[in-house]
Amino acid sequence: MAKMLVIYKTPADPAAFDRHYFDIHLPLAKQLPGLLRYDVSKRPIVNLLQGETPYLVATLYFDSLEAIRAAFATEVGKACAIDRRKYAPDHDVTMLLFDSEAM
Amino acid sequence: MAKMLVIYKTPADPAAFDRHYFDIHLPLAKQLPGLLRYDVSKRPIVNLLQGETPYLVATLYFDSLEAIRAAFATEVGKACAIDRRKYAPDHDVTMLLFDSEAM
Repeated sequence: MAKMLVIYKTPADPAAFDRHYFDIHLPLAKQLPGLLRYDVSKRPIVNLLQGETPYLVATLYFDSLEAIRAAFATEVGKACAIDRRKYAPDHDVTMLLFDSEAM
Repeated sequence: MAKMLVIYKTPADPAAFDRHYFDIHLPLAKQLPGLLRYDVSKRPIVNLLQGETPYLVATLYFDSLEAIRAAFATEVGKACAIDRRKYAPDHDVTMLLFDSEAM
């Protein structure tokens, strides 16, 4: 199972972020071809060690890294990438892709 | 479903990290009471935006935040926390707990 982990820093305007994220981005991203599951963190996020505490953590599950790349090459995928920049600039986002293994 | 997300920076000695993590830490952590699933990232981790690329991302799944806290209050949980410091100092680790919701 491959994951796309998207970690957002606390935005300047959390209410505006939430509106855009839940009303516009999420319904769009849920149309990504091959998306198996889409999890979003609830509040609060508890940070047990150092570093900034993220505002929101999203995990998108796909069958493989190739499936993620294929999804973001579609029109929906391109629209997701464009839309994301409207509510979160690149420097406020960590976006990691990896295959993962159940232990 | 609650998650414990553990993100490790690249260690000074990756081979030593791997030995400790996979041979000692993982078998211990799998005994955590209430653990539903334990996923570990495979390599490579692809970093699409800014920031350091992690070395390893582990996700531990539990029923609730309370279940995570209860697990780490047990003898196994305490042993996990002590063991983790043997292969990764606090400043090399991000450890986030949050409940999450399937969208």
